[in-house]
Amino acid sequence: MSLESEVLRRIKPTAKEVESLNSAANALKKTVDDDIEEHGIDVETRFVGSYAKDTYLSDPDIDLFLLFPETVPHKELETVGLSVGEAITNGIRMYSEHPYIRGKYKGVDVDLVPSYALKTAEKIRTAVDRTPFHTQYILERLKEEQKDEVRLLKGFMKGIGVYGAEPNTRGFSGYMCELLVLHYGSFLKALEGAGEWKEGVTISIEKKGPPILGPLVVYDPVDQKRNVASAVHIDTMALFITASKAYLSSPSEKFFFPQERQPYPREELERISDRNGSRLITVVFDRPDVVEDNLYSQLWKTRYALTRKLNDFDYTVLRAVHDMYEKKLEIAFELERDVLSKTYKHAGPPVWVKAADSFISKWKNNVYGPPFIEDGCWNVIAERMYFTAKEMLADEAAVSGIGREIDPRNMKIRNHETSLNETPPALLTELLDPKNSWEI
Amino acid sequence: MSLESEVLRRIKPTAKEVESLNSAANALKKTVDDDIEEHGIDVETRFVGSYAKDTYLSDPDIDLFLLFPETVPHKELETVGLSVGEAITNGIRMYSEHPYIRGKYKGVDVDLVPSYALKTAEKIRTAVDRTPFHTQYILERLKEEQKDEVRLLKGFMKGIGVYGAEPNTRGFSGYMCELLVLHYGSFLKALEGAGEWKEGVTISIEKKGPPILGPLVVYDPVDQKRNVASAVHIDTMALFITASKAYLSSPSEKFFFPQERQPYPREELERISDRNGSRLITVVFDRPDVVEDNLYSQLWKTRYALTRKLNDFDYTVLRAVHDMYEKKLEIAFELERDVLSKTYKHAGPPVWVKAADSFISKWKNNVYGPPFIEDGCWNVIAERMYFTAKEMLADEAAVSGIGREIDPRNMKIRNHETSLNETPPALLTELLDPKNSWEI
Repeated sequence: MSLESEVLRRIKPTAKEVESLNSAANALKKTVDDDIEEHGIDVETRFVGSYAKDTYLSDPDIDLFLLFPETVPHKELETVGLSVGEAITNGIRMYSEHPYIRGKYKGVDVDLVPSYALKTAEKIRTAVDRTPFHTQYILERLKEEQKDEVRLLKGFMKGIGVYGAEPNTRGFSGYMCELLVLHYGSFLKALEGAGEWKEGVTISIEKKGPPILGPLVVYDPVDQKRNVASAVHIDTMALFITASKAYLSSPSEKFFFPQERQPYPREELERISDRNGSRLITVVFDRPDVVEDNLYSQLWKTRYALTRKLNDFDYTVLRAVHDMYEKKLEIAFELERDVLSKTYKHAGPPVWVKAADSFISKWKNNVYGPPFIEDGCWNVIAERMYFTAKEMLADEAAVSGIGREIDPRNMKIRNHETSLNETPPALLTELLDPKNSWEI
Repeated sequence: MSLESEVLRRIKPTAKEVESLNSAANALKKTVDDDIEEHGIDVETRFVGSYAKDTYLSDPDIDLFLLFPETVPHKELETVGLSVGEAITNGIRMYSEHPYIRGKYKGVDVDLVPSYALKTAEKIRTAVDRTPFHTQYILERLKEEQKDEVRLLKGFMKGIGVYGAEPNTRGFSGYMCELLVLHYGSFLKALEGAGEWKEGVTISIEKKGPPILGPLVVYDPVDQKRNVASAVHIDTMALFITASKAYLSSPSEKFFFPQERQPYPREELERISDRNGSRLITVVFDRPDVVEDNLYSQLWKTRYALTRKLNDFDYTVLRAVHDMYEKKLEIAFELERDVLSKTYKHAGPPVWVKAADSFISKWKNNVYGPPFIEDGCWNVIAERMYFTAKEMLADEAAVSGIGREIDPRNMKIRNHETSLNETPPALLTELLDPKNSWEI
């Protein structure tokens, strides 16, 4: 039995699971159909997403769309669609570009999405409008035997941590997996394909659309202006390329089923940090009440903004990691140094420009000596605004471009020693000894 | 009496000095003329340089050229010219582009230079050929009352330390001073002119020649292809601009007669260095047996090369100074730091290039952890080759591009404490508290 068959046996839903899922799905559709009939509108209910395409792994969501005629006003579509959904699933209203109901029906997670029944893809205006076309596109083309290939690719991506287009993963959606299998033919051929990718690669299954910038561009066959891989970060792409090559050269189920990483004890973390001769600093924010995906984007933004500041001020970031907890957001940095020299050479204007005069009058009584000429410019030995990374961040974080809803006023900073004592060991383990999931 | 008249009274040779100089010069010319007659060649002897132009300060050299007919072979010109000179002045042979005799006659320093009597400036091939034309050009144009203006400008430049085109000063020649007075009209107008200079300014007294690159371009009126200011370094130019403005806004004899600087006691140097929080390092080489001017070029080159290395390796040079002693060459640096973090982030290739494989195999067993992905590239925490500036210089100086005849094998390096104890206080004073000569 091949490794892939063995994996498939573990990730594919059993006949029994499929049967119970189908029975729940059919009952749901019938209930919705009945309910909506009472409103006297001609609404088609249609399964979309991985359930409809039969490419799902165990325990999937069921996505049921309520497709209203285009003649129905948007307000009515929302009122009717959402209230029907709410009643049946006891669900709650969710808002992406478009409101929908997320609930539970006979133990299965269900998304009920009211939208318009569009005749052609040209009329697409929101991501929700696009979904039925994606489903249809895949259903019409994906061969029966390719469905398990999609499952393998999804399982692989999940295992190496690149599955999901949401802001923390910055990876590949289920639809993207289906397109890759369609394009390359199978799971293994998709990995081979990825092994050849480089930054800026474009994939067009139907025809190539207008130029789009991005590390990876996959033209959406139902909407050529759109990049299906727009959420894929260059590091997620690089990780997928690396894992694909690694799997092809030595396949292992570890790629699909990585060990959960055990955090190192604090003494071990201290030992590694001593060995590296580096310095730790941790920034902690209160977790604001914001949708998780949205908050993850802001957390990445904050991490990058603070990294930039630390580098600009010469503390030199070796690595950074972040995590979100129930009440806190934490970003930990490993730095080359957390204290700088007291003074630095501050470069001024060339001696022949007008600004030279004001530079001179500003600095002529400088404690560290008056300005001197170098390379035709005035220079002066000036005192640094901040000696330590901690002082710097305390002052500069608020103006560094951190996430909009992350409040610098509640920011706490742990220095090296306090980080070693208080920053969660799992986070420090990831920081000080980053490992590919399949190598743990 | 104006400040300038007062200065002139002190820098201009007295009538008695002039008389004794003229008498020595005339006697020298007569002796050379008599001596050369014996060789049966029709050689004109002619005074050139500041003595001939009457723009000299006290105690000048006398430059006497022996102008041979162009029909005389170069070998004969040298044999005859040099032997005559040697005999009369008891001098020694000097070699620039062209050999000449440097000696003493009746207590006066004398340069006797055999060269060809060229009819027109078009035939100029060496710097020596050019000199008689320069002298003639100035003699024909400089007004009697401008001669003292030249003396003032020379005295000013001497006082602020920019007089002389030789490699350590990197400044303005006497001819350059004469041209500036010709161009601007007087000493004060020349300073006003310089106050308007900026990098790349060009001055053409006759007509503009072909484009020449340099911070300051003064087309030689007798040879338009040549920049009279080619020796002027941007920092010397900047210093002259600064001093000119400073003098015009508050004239003082200090510009002409600066106080000699008193080196600080070692305790004071240590106090300044502590105050700056900086670190000192001194590099000491044996002085090779090389012509001084040539060696000064090599010393500047060495200083710049080592500065580059120190900056490349992140020790960050605040300031550097150098000096030449009887047996040693010393370069002292003030650094932001002299010890670095043990590790650094070493950036590798993008994961998708071929070189990625060899990067991985090189680093996979790295003591500080295996490679990790950032911005699509492999990175690794690597141990620095050198932790201290001293170790780094000991290894890298030889390949940094230091002066050709400066031998890195005899290099000694003083660390911070040893520099404070052993580096000449005058050098450390200049390093740690650089001051304009007129402000001492």
